[in-house]
Amino acid sequence: MTRKLRMGMVGGGNDAFIGAVHRIAAFMDGKIELVCGSFSVNPTVSLESGRDLFVAENRIYADYKTMIEQEALLPEGERMDFLTIVTPNFLHFEPAKLALENGFDVVVEKPMTVSLEEAKQLQDITIRTGRTLCLTHTYSGYPMVKQAKAMVNGGHFGKIRKIVVEYPQGWLSRLSEREGNSGAAWRADPKRSGKSLVMGDIGTHAAHLAEYVSGLRITELCADLTTFVEGRQMDDDGSVLLRFDNGAKGVLMASQISAGEENAVRIRIYGEEGGLEWANEDPNNLIIKMLDQPRQIYRTGNAYAAPYTLSSFATHNTRIPAGHPEGLLESFANIYRNFASTVSAKRDGLEPKPEELDFPNVQDGVRGMAFIDTVVESNNSNEKWTKFVV
Amino acid sequence: MTRKLRMGMVGGGNDAFIGAVHRIAAFMDGKIELVCGSFSVNPTVSLESGRDLFVAENRIYADYKTMIEQEALLPEGERMDFLTIVTPNFLHFEPAKLALENGFDVVVEKPMTVSLEEAKQLQDITIRTGRTLCLTHTYSGYPMVKQAKAMVNGGHFGKIRKIVVEYPQGWLSRLSEREGNSGAAWRADPKRSGKSLVMGDIGTHAAHLAEYVSGLRITELCADLTTFVEGRQMDDDGSVLLRFDNGAKGVLMASQISAGEENAVRIRIYGEEGGLEWANEDPNNLIIKMLDQPRQIYRTGNAYAAPYTLSSFATHNTRIPAGHPEGLLESFANIYRNFASTVSAKRDGLEPKPEELDFPNVQDGVRGMAFIDTVVESNNSNEKWTKFVV
Amino acid sequence: MTRKLRMGMVGGGNDAFIGAVHRIAAFMDGKIELVCGSFSVNPTVSLESGRDLFVAENRIYADYKTMIEQEALLPEGERMDFLTIVTPNFLHFEPAKLALENGFDVVVEKPMTVSLEEAKQLQDITIRTGRTLCLTHTYSGYPMVKQAKAMVNGGHFGKIRKIVVEYPQGWLSRLSEREGNSGAAWRADPKRSGKSLVMGDIGTHAAHLAEYVSGLRITELCADLTTFVEGRQMDDDGSVLLRFDNGAKGVLMASQISAGEENAVRIRIYGEEGGLEWANEDPNNLIIKMLDQPRQIYRTGNAYAAPYTLSSFATHNTRIPAGHPEGLLESFANIYRNFASTVSAKRDGLEPKPEELDFPNVQDGVRGMAFIDTVVESNNSNEKWTKFVV
Amino acid sequence: MTRKLRMGMVGGGNDAFIGAVHRIAAFMDGKIELVCGSFSVNPTVSLESGRDLFVAENRIYADYKTMIEQEALLPEGERMDFLTIVTPNFLHFEPAKLALENGFDVVVEKPMTVSLEEAKQLQDITIRTGRTLCLTHTYSGYPMVKQAKAMVNGGHFGKIRKIVVEYPQGWLSRLSEREGNSGAAWRADPKRSGKSLVMGDIGTHAAHLAEYVSGLRITELCADLTTFVEGRQMDDDGSVLLRFDNGAKGVLMASQISAGEENAVRIRIYGEEGGLEWANEDPNNLIIKMLDQPRQIYRTGNAYAAPYTLSSFATHNTRIPAGHPEGLLESFANIYRNFASTVSAKRDGLEPKPEELDFPNVQDGVRGMAFIDTVVESNNSNEKWTKFVV
Repeated sequence: MTRKLRMGMVGGGNDAFIGAVHRIAAFMDGKIELVCGSFSVNPTVSLESGRDLFVAENRIYADYKTMIEQEALLPEGERMDFLTIVTPNFLHFEPAKLALENGFDVVVEKPMTVSLEEAKQLQDITIRTGRTLCLTHTYSGYPMVKQAKAMVNGGHFGKIRKIVVEYPQGWLSRLSEREGNSGAAWRADPKRSGKSLVMGDIGTHAAHLAEYVSGLRITELCADLTTFVEGRQMDDDGSVLLRFDNGAKGVLMASQISAGEENAVRIRIYGEEGGLEWANEDPNNLIIKMLDQPRQIYRTGNAYAAPYTLSSFATHNTRIPAGHPEGLLESFANIYRNFASTVSAKRDGLEPKPEELDFPNVQDGVRGMAFIDTVVESNNSNEKWTKFVV
Repeated sequence: MTRKLRMGMVGGGNDAFIGAVHRIAAFMDGKIELVCGSFSVNPTVSLESGRDLFVAENRIYADYKTMIEQEALLPEGERMDFLTIVTPNFLHFEPAKLALENGFDVVVEKPMTVSLEEAKQLQDITIRTGRTLCLTHTYSGYPMVKQAKAMVNGGHFGKIRKIVVEYPQGWLSRLSEREGNSGAAWRADPKRSGKSLVMGDIGTHAAHLAEYVSGLRITELCADLTTFVEGRQMDDDGSVLLRFDNGAKGVLMASQISAGEENAVRIRIYGEEGGLEWANEDPNNLIIKMLDQPRQIYRTGNAYAAPYTLSSFATHNTRIPAGHPEGLLESFANIYRNFASTVSAKRDGLEPKPEELDFPNVQDGVRGMAFIDTVVESNNSNEKWTKFVV
Repeated sequence: MTRKLRMGMVGGGNDAFIGAVHRIAAFMDGKIELVCGSFSVNPTVSLESGRDLFVAENRIYADYKTMIEQEALLPEGERMDFLTIVTPNFLHFEPAKLALENGFDVVVEKPMTVSLEEAKQLQDITIRTGRTLCLTHTYSGYPMVKQAKAMVNGGHFGKIRKIVVEYPQGWLSRLSEREGNSGAAWRADPKRSGKSLVMGDIGTHAAHLAEYVSGLRITELCADLTTFVEGRQMDDDGSVLLRFDNGAKGVLMASQISAGEENAVRIRIYGEEGGLEWANEDPNNLIIKMLDQPRQIYRTGNAYAAPYTLSSFATHNTRIPAGHPEGLLESFANIYRNFASTVSAKRDGLEPKPEELDFPNVQDGVRGMAFIDTVVESNNSNEKWTKFVV
Repeated sequence: MTRKLRMGMVGGGNDAFIGAVHRIAAFMDGKIELVCGSFSVNPTVSLESGRDLFVAENRIYADYKTMIEQEALLPEGERMDFLTIVTPNFLHFEPAKLALENGFDVVVEKPMTVSLEEAKQLQDITIRTGRTLCLTHTYSGYPMVKQAKAMVNGGHFGKIRKIVVEYPQGWLSRLSEREGNSGAAWRADPKRSGKSLVMGDIGTHAAHLAEYVSGLRITELCADLTTFVEGRQMDDDGSVLLRFDNGAKGVLMASQISAGEENAVRIRIYGEEGGLEWANEDPNNLIIKMLDQPRQIYRTGNAYAAPYTLSSFATHNTRIPAGHPEGLLESFANIYRNFASTVSAKRDGLEPKPEELDFPNVQDGVRGMAFIDTVVESNNSNEKWTKFVV
């Protein structure tokens, strides 16, 4: 990269949570700087947040439209290069569309939009404009998840037969949306959140992870969604039987009423010759279970000898030597770093390396929205199986 | 107990596996002795096995019918007190029926029979004869499983919302039934095994565990069964969505093609206030996750102070001090010891203690067969939900 | 074996703990029966205990001398074959001596005696009489400990450089010997326990484990013993720097005031090419860490393919298939089973197999007593290093 | 903070490792920017490194002396605020001294210097100049380590009796210093490294961790250092018996030939009422073992209710919600963030908060050098105990 990339931000003020995560991820590698933002619909919060973030006052904007218009007038190298969107779901589409159409690349939180229709529109716009959209499906940024994908892809386990992916949380075990938890409030509000709380908020992470690691595509599913907490307007738990395009079967569980669980994302994939297991709570261990062999634990950052050598996709996304745990923020930063490398390479007329292109994109966003649609359709149906089509 | 109980055995010769497990479990506590047996349909194997087990030659019988007839002629205190049946599934019903009708109590491997009809007949016979039938659903014998049940039952977690129970194995990832594995051969043969391989062999363990710990009953389910290994005549993988009688939801996974897994039984139950997790691979730890509290690990054999005091059902089923792991054989032995205490108490005209009565019985066997039936029916249906009725 | 071995027992009445463990271990495999005993110095307790154990009343003896004398008069095949001694430490030597000299083999709890002098006498007597003495250093009975030993012995790790062995407990964190805990009372009484509480009770287990797995011998050491609990008469914690005969170094920690620990025995051994780790809390996992390779976990009971095939010493000492945890009682039973096989083979004029001879013996007992002596001598010395000589 | 802090750097060029870690840690929170550096003694490497880091060419200096002189001439707010020193050990003292004397605060890698004498000089200089020196003992930056310290300090465990701290690595199991590993080369060179390889490189981390968490001070010790790898000039393994100022005992193990280990830092502390355990491989779990209670696991980022509420020292050093693992880089960044907050507060005439002042400082550096000296002295002595005096 010949210079730092310049980031603008919509949302992510001092009263929000995920914006801070995006900034840490963006800053960590010293390749991205924050130059402008519209950090809150509350102008006072936006101004204070911008100041706290050392953003020049004249580039703390009242709203995203003004920001995009004003930044577009600045010369290249001064104006923002890309826009990060960390607003509630229903406020993803408009700024993303406007940014892309004004020549800015985009990073957006998942789920990409609140409807499949919006998602397809964004896909069309990226094709039309040639801009890059990055979707922050965090868990696919971990080195050991990438190692898992590389091993599946390399045929290590033979043909894949079974996939179990789960994301249990307990933080919505109570009616937190009525107890002053603003993050719960908009997530549990169908107007701001989309068709499904549990699938929009965490189920799409699980679905993406399953397809990312396995390289397979879900073709049909059977879902059971539930609202366990009285007074809640949306579902807070879902279990889904899955079928994949190679004949594999699977189960996806997403739950926000699994009381006592934190963010216990976990995936297990079994093939003809062995299986793998990875969990967010212990992300630097990839457990490999081959038929007739001792269990193996591949660990982040090791310079294993052949035939155990870690994939270049794993090592490219690792910063420190083995035994020093990397965490979610580094996983997140991998997505930003790869996005930044890709955008810079394109700007400089270079071909990004495959490792750099390895971040969730607009197509993943479209599949995520289609997944939510299909789950909700299945839940409302008495038919056992509902086709997953995009 | 005023004297050792005398056990007879059908099956369990030197060429079998589970018979040895039953004997270890029976012998461990010094309260049961083996006095007779018909250990194999192969008379040479039966004879050699009996000799290796120090059984008197005149009580090594050619077949179970002869054994039951002959033993019934012996005086009380000399004849066997109960019969353990460790033959393939299709050979459970007849010896169990005959033994019960001849005044012997019975221990039988799961699944209890090969059909719901047979199971119900056995239930009727036990009612009619007043005899006791014990079904060896091993996992419910562990102290920490009993502790889990006691905590659920005591309201520790509030109303139960979600149950995830799984039993992944990998040992049938290949066509072992054609490769000289006799245990695989009869299990994968519909004539000898029953309607479902995966559900009969391990799925009923999972279903029993879920109902045992939660105290709830499955009311409807949605199942997807698969035969992954080419050439196999029966299913080797199944995933099931569950609904329980209190409104709780659940998922049951049973798989014999989860390559690399051993016997990874695991259960998680979530209520309004917290959740629990227990796994066969680490059976002396019961993980408790309450909202707003650090995770807790209850461990076998500890003399915790109130309010953490272990349930009498846990301590009754523990033999050694904390930190010294007890395993599957002790869990199995708990079932035998409780069965023996119950049978002895009845014989002596005493009321067994609740802890002694805590072993899987003929009703559990009926539910297990009904579970298999319902899963198979659901798998063959396009309707999403199939009622579980006994 | 042509018949069951007949066991007599000194100690182990209903008011004791370790006797029950010995009986479970002895009974489990159906090859040993209890025929006589002197279960307590309290004759009522002894009688009641014998009855509860279904021992014929005429073979419940008032004391061990009477028992040995009377049993010796019975014909072979009726009299006991061996004597298990589960009395407090100071009561090991006399019954062991008498039994050996009267033609009985012996199983004795560790530490073998209360002095090195006694231990050497027992060694001499076994040589003179040709009888077998088995010392129950439990932890060496685990299959994965035997696998570890086999791998070290086979050169898997190259030359051994470093050994860390530890046995932390917390059960003596308070002055339990004054609070009605009879096990604590005699262990903390120098007259009944020997020279060191912590080293006699658990330190010798650790020292034996280090030498057993590594095949090395401690040659000198530097010890620091402490009495942390006020009012206690003996040490309750000790740390020891070790040097081995091949130049390896090590650390041994034994502690009974590590509050909150149960029986957390753990050993780590490092060679030029890799290391191993095993822990009593998770005994079916042997963790192997080779340079430049993923971590491996060898697990009990697996039929791994070459080059991972488990040692015959591991498989010989395993009862059930992989994934079904075996625990301390099976480890203990392995010691009994191997002892019984060895004794039977000798009686039948056969050569025991190497796997059968693999149980701790009188030489291990002598080294254990020498270890205690050396640690105490070092603790009392200002010299850094004290030679370990037997 | 009213503006970002400006960092200069000595060392840390593209051919080095730890410099990149410092930069990630410094950048992550968006409060520090890199403005100048002398990144390598090789001017080409320094220049290229500076360019890659987007440093203005006129502030990429030929050597640290020039840098400090030139930067000192720039106006406040333009010149660097502090200097990070990430050179080999023998090159810590001179730039630190010069920077402090020219009005710059300093961050320096451990061990602080190559001799106790140098360390004491730096301490004197900080006192004289009023500048702040931060020493990057990484492991004390973890939230759960801070939670452990808070719990010990709050009396949760009663009086502390036993401390076991260990840092096993395997990366020097071979003669890597002769195989082109430049990091190994200078570390294993007594001229560039100091008196002890293993204690300077990792033993001081362990010693600091023990004193930091326990709040106790080592008063005497007994050490055994070894050089296992043939051809190596310095020790690569050490075990140390410890005694603390309150009467507690302990063991410290540091090893670089524990083949297969990565960076397995681990600490266990036991008091009268219970114990704690923390490990770098699993840093978001703090295991608490109280007498008579189930084991507890405190986890990073949880909003536990009283009496489990996490210490403000833990929460202040946490960035993301529970269940999303934070790793070594965040721990490192905590040290930088607290240092930056402290330096900024002082500059603005404010009193830093206790949480901000919680980073390793020059006094810790002096104790670290005294620890190395004492260990080496003990190793060379036949006396069992050597006093630890500063």
